[in-house]
Amino acid sequence: MHINLNLQSLDRLLERCLEEDIGSGDITTNSVVPPELETTAFIKARQDGVIAGLPVARAVFRKLDPELVFTPQVAEGAQVTAGTVLAKLAGRARTILTGERLALNFLQRLSGVATLTDRLVRLAGDYPVRLVDTRKTTPGLRALEKYAVRVGGGHNHRLGLFDAVLIKDNHIQAAGGITQAIKRARTELPHTVKIEVEVEELAGVSEALEAGADIIMLDNMTPENMARAVALVKGRALTEASGGITAANLAAVAATGVDVISMGALTHSAPALDISLDLGRLKAAPEAKEMST
Amino acid sequence: MHINLNLQSLDRLLERCLEEDIGSGDITTNSVVPPELETTAFIKARQDGVIAGLPVARAVFRKLDPELVFTPQVAEGAQVTAGTVLAKLAGRARTILTGERLALNFLQRLSGVATLTDRLVRLAGDYPVRLVDTRKTTPGLRALEKYAVRVGGGHNHRLGLFDAVLIKDNHIQAAGGITQAIKRARTELPHTVKIEVEVEELAGVSEALEAGADIIMLDNMTPENMARAVALVKGRALTEASGGITAANLAAVAATGVDVISMGALTHSAPALDISLDLGRLKAAPEAKEMST
Amino acid sequence: MHINLNLQSLDRLLERCLEEDIGSGDITTNSVVPPELETTAFIKARQDGVIAGLPVARAVFRKLDPELVFTPQVAEGAQVTAGTVLAKLAGRARTILTGERLALNFLQRLSGVATLTDRLVRLAGDYPVRLVDTRKTTPGLRALEKYAVRVGGGHNHRLGLFDAVLIKDNHIQAAGGITQAIKRARTELPHTVKIEVEVEELAGVSEALEAGADIIMLDNMTPENMARAVALVKGRALTEASGGITAANLAAVAATGVDVISMGALTHSAPALDISLDLGRLKAAPEAKEMST
Amino acid sequence: MHINLNLQSLDRLLERCLEEDIGSGDITTNSVVPPELETTAFIKARQDGVIAGLPVARAVFRKLDPELVFTPQVAEGAQVTAGTVLAKLAGRARTILTGERLALNFLQRLSGVATLTDRLVRLAGDYPVRLVDTRKTTPGLRALEKYAVRVGGGHNHRLGLFDAVLIKDNHIQAAGGITQAIKRARTELPHTVKIEVEVEELAGVSEALEAGADIIMLDNMTPENMARAVALVKGRALTEASGGITAANLAAVAATGVDVISMGALTHSAPALDISLDLGRLKAAPEAKEMST
Amino acid sequence: MHINLNLQSLDRLLERCLEEDIGSGDITTNSVVPPELETTAFIKARQDGVIAGLPVARAVFRKLDPELVFTPQVAEGAQVTAGTVLAKLAGRARTILTGERLALNFLQRLSGVATLTDRLVRLAGDYPVRLVDTRKTTPGLRALEKYAVRVGGGHNHRLGLFDAVLIKDNHIQAAGGITQAIKRARTELPHTVKIEVEVEELAGVSEALEAGADIIMLDNMTPENMARAVALVKGRALTEASGGITAANLAAVAATGVDVISMGALTHSAPALDISLDLGRLKAAPEAKEMST
Amino acid sequence: MHINLNLQSLDRLLERCLEEDIGSGDITTNSVVPPELETTAFIKARQDGVIAGLPVARAVFRKLDPELVFTPQVAEGAQVTAGTVLAKLAGRARTILTGERLALNFLQRLSGVATLTDRLVRLAGDYPVRLVDTRKTTPGLRALEKYAVRVGGGHNHRLGLFDAVLIKDNHIQAAGGITQAIKRARTELPHTVKIEVEVEELAGVSEALEAGADIIMLDNMTPENMARAVALVKGRALTEASGGITAANLAAVAATGVDVISMGALTHSAPALDISLDLGRLKAAPEAKEMST
Repeated sequence: MHINLNLQSLDRLLERCLEEDIGSGDITTNSVVPPELETTAFIKARQDGVIAGLPVARAVFRKLDPELVFTPQVAEGAQVTAGTVLAKLAGRARTILTGERLALNFLQRLSGVATLTDRLVRLAGDYPVRLVDTRKTTPGLRALEKYAVRVGGGHNHRLGLFDAVLIKDNHIQAAGGITQAIKRARTELPHTVKIEVEVEELAGVSEALEAGADIIMLDNMTPENMARAVALVKGRALTEASGGITAANLAAVAATGVDVISMGALTHSAPALDISLDLGRLKAAPEAKEMST
Repeated sequence: MHINLNLQSLDRLLERCLEEDIGSGDITTNSVVPPELETTAFIKARQDGVIAGLPVARAVFRKLDPELVFTPQVAEGAQVTAGTVLAKLAGRARTILTGERLALNFLQRLSGVATLTDRLVRLAGDYPVRLVDTRKTTPGLRALEKYAVRVGGGHNHRLGLFDAVLIKDNHIQAAGGITQAIKRARTELPHTVKIEVEVEELAGVSEALEAGADIIMLDNMTPENMARAVALVKGRALTEASGGITAANLAAVAATGVDVISMGALTHSAPALDISLDLGRLKAAPEAKEMST
Repeated sequence: MHINLNLQSLDRLLERCLEEDIGSGDITTNSVVPPELETTAFIKARQDGVIAGLPVARAVFRKLDPELVFTPQVAEGAQVTAGTVLAKLAGRARTILTGERLALNFLQRLSGVATLTDRLVRLAGDYPVRLVDTRKTTPGLRALEKYAVRVGGGHNHRLGLFDAVLIKDNHIQAAGGITQAIKRARTELPHTVKIEVEVEELAGVSEALEAGADIIMLDNMTPENMARAVALVKGRALTEASGGITAANLAAVAATGVDVISMGALTHSAPALDISLDLGRLKAAPEAKEMST
Repeated sequence: MHINLNLQSLDRLLERCLEEDIGSGDITTNSVVPPELETTAFIKARQDGVIAGLPVARAVFRKLDPELVFTPQVAEGAQVTAGTVLAKLAGRARTILTGERLALNFLQRLSGVATLTDRLVRLAGDYPVRLVDTRKTTPGLRALEKYAVRVGGGHNHRLGLFDAVLIKDNHIQAAGGITQAIKRARTELPHTVKIEVEVEELAGVSEALEAGADIIMLDNMTPENMARAVALVKGRALTEASGGITAANLAAVAATGVDVISMGALTHSAPALDISLDLGRLKAAPEAKEMST
Repeated sequence: MHINLNLQSLDRLLERCLEEDIGSGDITTNSVVPPELETTAFIKARQDGVIAGLPVARAVFRKLDPELVFTPQVAEGAQVTAGTVLAKLAGRARTILTGERLALNFLQRLSGVATLTDRLVRLAGDYPVRLVDTRKTTPGLRALEKYAVRVGGGHNHRLGLFDAVLIKDNHIQAAGGITQAIKRARTELPHTVKIEVEVEELAGVSEALEAGADIIMLDNMTPENMARAVALVKGRALTEASGGITAANLAAVAATGVDVISMGALTHSAPALDISLDLGRLKAAPEAKEMST
Repeated sequence: MHINLNLQSLDRLLERCLEEDIGSGDITTNSVVPPELETTAFIKARQDGVIAGLPVARAVFRKLDPELVFTPQVAEGAQVTAGTVLAKLAGRARTILTGERLALNFLQRLSGVATLTDRLVRLAGDYPVRLVDTRKTTPGLRALEKYAVRVGGGHNHRLGLFDAVLIKDNHIQAAGGITQAIKRARTELPHTVKIEVEVEELAGVSEALEAGADIIMLDNMTPENMARAVALVKGRALTEASGGITAANLAAVAATGVDVISMGALTHSAPALDISLDLGRLKAAPEAKEMST
């Protein structure tokens, strides 16, 4: 699978995050570490897990200093054990010390998401079902967290409110019913848009199907009811299980035959993976010939 | 304690986060929910905890629609039980539905941080010690997460690399020793800047004190050694315990007499507090007189 | 039909367009017209057409001066004849003179798009077919031009490259065939995304259908072949006629039974509608009490 | 003639236009076309015309991918016939497919403006008169459209409200007369600014001349009256014909001896020139050595 | 004279300058001064001078807090003596303390420019000559400093490189002579642009006049030669004295009959006017009813 | 001493300043100077002084044209005499002419600050005292002006309101006394922040010391009282002299034993150093092979 990550669109995010941490300057490094000092450094996993975010970590250091050499030692998405070296760095000591925290903050969080996703995908076993994320992502980091879900073997739900319709109970209430809601969306929106509708009971499944829903979200149903819904739908729409799904019941849900399982926990509650950076040998750079202020 | 939150500086962050979620438009709400429909809504805690982020949630809705009325039902920082209504909303149904997810994403995360901080502050008991955060915050959300720590009864460490010196082992290695590192920082930087230095052994404490450190970070020391360090320092510098501190050993660390305890976990690993939004009664607004496209 | 226009998202566009025209200042108005002078003004159609863009014109003046009163005299989307007053303005003469050109530039262009769309929608007659736009819009003005299409009674195709898949001949060539292309998109992308594929011959229609396309674009086909394709598809996918469609053959294409007809001309070649602004009575404002520099 | 185009100042415009089209990603290309696939492509004219915008098209592709090679096959401003290859591209297939639409949207519009300008300049014949544009340009694209006018052999009027004075009838009315208006502008503004005044009758010409106008705009005058005005002015100011000028009467207006003829139609109503992009041979790139996520 | 100041265009400048000073927060005021405390304050001149910048100072405070009341006590451009109260402020003590420095930094600098301009304009006496500024302004503050020159009774030269031509010796050298340079500019540029050329000797005056210069800058000439140049030009172009003009020789230069005298010193070397802010009575605000975090 | 200057953070400042000057284009250079013309140029001091800002000047030209070669002829911070060549430039004549003014505006101002600082540092003689700046800097240029102070041998006070506490008389008044103010700041703020308090009498010195101030600012005291204050403090806090310090009394203040002397004049009233740019030999570039529009 290709896991696209648009680094170009990350540019301004990284800029803002560096600005947040560095502000008017890294006064410790700038006063204590000579500008010409060079070093190597190693990024290491301190826990087992699936690694996501190496291109982001590299981009953080490159924003600070295009000459820094960042060499990944494992592939993005690799399953690693504690102690594995993930990347080697070589360049100015200042760059490495100033960028360290932000690079690790990203790596730890994204690897945490990928690791959790991977674990849950395995729990779903061999059923032909997709495990997907939700919009319960960290404000500002959605594209990255959804990328980490893909790295971990999951799939994505819609990116935001703009690229697919998801009619929830509140919308249904406001529209006056499932049928009315679907009809309005169908009439108003481009023919290129899929319409998903959330139902809580089997009656809703039939109504949604009738009204032409493309995807039916089975919200907080028991596995038994999910299986009934799947039988009812007979492939005329996609079925998506959602709400109250945990590691404990994931296999049972997968066994119901639903096409998709969505879990907010993938991005919302993934614990960070412990990752650290250690300096290697320090050496003063050969005298710079260029103006060095 | 006053817990300042600069909402003005949040303005662009909220703009970007709304843009991230809404993009070219909330196509579900815009096609399904009539523009004139008004409603009330309730934000409720579904777990016990300490609430942080009500002003942020309010600001999210206000950015979308300045006419929405958001009335907090508990004070920021309140200790609540599951089921407590945190805020009432009244206004356009569209605004509430479009802003819901982002407002909750903020509220859940910040209340999670405040709740964890509160719990740990209680563990530290009556010792005159500050529990503080670190720079292990979510990229882009540092000011908010540090605010949530204050709401939870904690204090902040430096905001970033720009507002205090923290000389770590890597800096010491690069400078050639604790004394050299402190001297360089003292010489180069404004007299208004405090210098903290990280030491791992008692020998380092003496050297740091000698060299004029303002704060000595006792990194990964045993409580016994911490107590010895505190005795050595005798109030001539602040002492800060750091590294490997958990709920399990927090009280023991507090008992050593250190002035400050820093824990990355406050912002790094705080589980989100479960919070939801429910719609109340819907009613169509009186015919708008103004141009309403 | 509700025709949503997100004025908030226009804010920065209007800012840039005002900046483009005004730059360091409207030196004519600022030197010639006294700041306290007030006036009324009238925006008038000088051709028959469908009016689109009144909220944009109003927003232009409001950006310059929140106190200006802009009162539409016809509804957005109204069919008007030459000479109809579209809006009345009342406020500072300077505001009106400085904003006039940009407001008219928007109004003329958007009304031109709406007028053309309206004319073509009528040509399609009573067939249950949607007339939709393309991505051949003016760089920077896509949301506005697609809005004008809706005002004129048309519908929108996807907004951009991000919200629906459209596999064209070049993509098919790159993927090694229709089936491979559709499969890849289905595997890689969220289940919430529709897949449209462009075919030029009937053979392609069958393959696309087989591979599970949601929408089949019939590119540059004769009406006869389109009718055959529609018969072949039998409602299992949406059919979209595209390429070489003009006012001359639009009715014939609509008669083939396709679901959608897309025409780049809607946004690409719509002639501007002639619209002008005339000043009414001038009067000096009562002496301002506030500091007026 | 040198036709300067400040590509640097285009940078943010192109960024915004790419963002408008690509948003969260070109999901078709990213899922269907392998990242390593390389290709050539050809941009071809499908109508006769004057080409403008090649540097813009190149900049579009370069923003997406600095390694793409874009080789113009005709000079900017070249008169071409249908079928002429305008440029060859070589590089990643993804880049070419993602950038194609925006590059063509610019090329078609700018070549349309240049082609119309060229045609009208020829109609004006050998008279020593400048054909110039107005401020009736597409919001956001003024600099580009004015550049296309120069490519087509025309000249520019002022760029915006900031770089020259143009006193229109509304300004005259507000100021209380031609003389008062000119005097105010002369007093208030830098001595480096030219003052143009719009007059509709011969009486106005004399008054404007008397009051020291640098340029006198003859608005909606008959060619006869224009000739009289030119005789009256005797070179003491520049004369500019404006209003109601079409291909039909352009030569007659040019013959009156005016110095300048301004036509909004140059930018306002120029039909786009039909231009297309075709892919050439596809080939997979040699295995990339660098991290390719 | 109307002295326009576009406060809207200042908005982002003020935002950046507040950001520069306040950054992550005014930690002194926020920790020491209760949020509900209200006060009055007085801005006072501590030197005699001409006041410029009151609207800017007001805008600074308003950006921080729209409820602050700022009441000017003298008119913009007023000639005041030391001790004069320039403005009264009433509102939150925090707002006043946080905004004080930036507001004063602007007021002092702009009043300094206005005061110097006023003094030099008086030295030029009753001769019908304009005293104008140059492009030797503070980077980032040009519009404000040129505004202050107008407040002080001076006039402006061109705003930047974009709104008038000024051909200097280096340009002449590059073009191959005065005549060639003027001809090129005339051919290439809009007919709405004035062309000024710098000459150092009387021979240059004749050549520039011949070639059709609109303004002739007499650079570093003796008053005697200036008078000769003025006689030579006989009103066929504007004459501008420039270079080496000081308070000492200003009257002599004015007496030569030149139309314009330009002095970089107006903006470049104007000493700041000493201005201070004093707090008045403090009082706690009535208990706020709104959520006050 | 290392004098760090973060050029990266300057990027947007330079962009805005170039935009301020160039706007829609340098019409003189673009119309008069052929694009292919190359030249050398020399930046020369016309007064004795200390040079600061060479990296900024270089960055200005590089923003315009990355190929321009800028070779400093003296080190940043060098003491030069009138006539010294500071830098040689080689590249396109257009780049040099367009960037000249902004580069010089920066160089002159920053060298002025460095020169004044250097002079005053020498006046302070051999006393172990730091001469530091204040927040009375030019809005928008604080980082650069503080850098110039360091180049001139001075030190910096805090950067803004965010990185240190400075409790002034107004804050004391608002807090109800020195002790209360210090206590509040100590309680509310991170333990990493230093607290400075301004006192005007010896009584205040004792109270501030008692309350735990880190730095005591002796405001407008006589040298005699300063000496007494220093004796009172006995090294338990830093002492800073401020207010009314001039070249005339600087040595006397330094002799009192204070640790720091702050002077707003360093940045506020430093006269610009006179610096100019002269063109060298012009030559047409070899025919460009690339598309040159």
